[in-house]
Amino acid sequence: LAGPDVFLPDAVEIGRRKADICAQHGLTGLYPLDNAVDLAAGDVSLAIFRGNEAMMDAAGAIIANLTPFRGPGADAGTVYELGYMAGRGKPLFAYSNDPTTYAERVERTHQATKSSGGGLIDRDGLVVEDFGLSDNLMMIHALDLHGTALVTPHKVPADIWHDLTAFEVCVRLVADRAAGK
Amino acid sequence: LAGPDVFLPDAVEIGRRKADICAQHGLTGLYPLDNAVDLAAGDVSLAIFRGNEAMMDAAGAIIANLTPFRGPGADAGTVYELGYMAGRGKPLFAYSNDPTTYAERVERTHQATKSSGGGLIDRDGLVVEDFGLSDNLMMIHALDLHGTALVTPHKVPADIWHDLTAFEVCVRLVADRAAGK
Repeated sequence: LAGPDVFLPDAVEIGRRKADICAQHGLTGLYPLDNAVDLAAGDVSLAIFRGNEAMMDAAGAIIANLTPFRGPGADAGTVYELGYMAGRGKPLFAYSNDPTTYAERVERTHQATKSSGGGLIDRDGLVVEDFGLSDNLMMIHALDLHGTALVTPHKVPADIWHDLTAFEVCVRLVADRAAGK
Repeated sequence: LAGPDVFLPDAVEIGRRKADICAQHGLTGLYPLDNAVDLAAGDVSLAIFRGNEAMMDAAGAIIANLTPFRGPGADAGTVYELGYMAGRGKPLFAYSNDPTTYAERVERTHQATKSSGGGLIDRDGLVVEDFGLSDNLMMIHALDLHGTALVTPHKVPADIWHDLTAFEVCVRLVADRAAGK
């Protein structure tokens, strides 16, 4: 269960809710904060990394929360984990609670405008991916080809960080796949 | 050769420069824009994805440009590729032309401040990873354990998107590894 959820003030509670939803569908959800990390030990960040990597190696699939985090796109740690699971050949599932496209968000956050050539360019003169996708094409098409298409709501939920409707859709998809449906 | 370089106005030229540096060190650099994509075909973004994935499967290692892109951290497409290569068990190399820490950048871009508990919190109340690392711990420690530590300059180069000094350090590291040094 990858996502920037671990950075929420109530990170432990949301992890419990996610694990409960998994259990209701007969699945075991592994959540990063389940790892015991000795905060008094030398290298805390390295211990977190090792715990997360071991969880990925133990997991049969990933459900990633790709809701935009601190910028126009998904959280980098989550994206790394999605890539890692793809590289390991495991099925990918993900959701985003933001139904807008990446280009729409960059228009807002980085004042992207159409260039004279017709392409979308941000305020720094960098090209903006404009394929009508929810985020960078590497993640979106990895999901299409190595799992199930990104799950998004029709409109932004009232609480973008705590609404687990789209997450539960992913859990059902994993459960169906596990059941061979 | 992964990176947001593909979004620069002179993306083709910088790819040529990177491939030239690789050649000078006896290596073959594979650059995303080398892939032939039929822009008139149906699904351009899917064709780009397939080309990039085939390149990763063909490559013996990755050199990723993790210079912060459109936010406080690295480009998501590049991060996905770093994760994918890690999952495939291939050695990871990366550089960032920004020597500051992730927490320093979030202080600037998202007005992070110390909470009463002592932790760093951004303007939205989300916890900020504050381990003195250059970016999210998943990428930084993946490099430490599955390749070579992130290469950064002592200070930001005059042209953050075109200075290839740190890139060339990575190329030397790959060449040394290929030579069994």
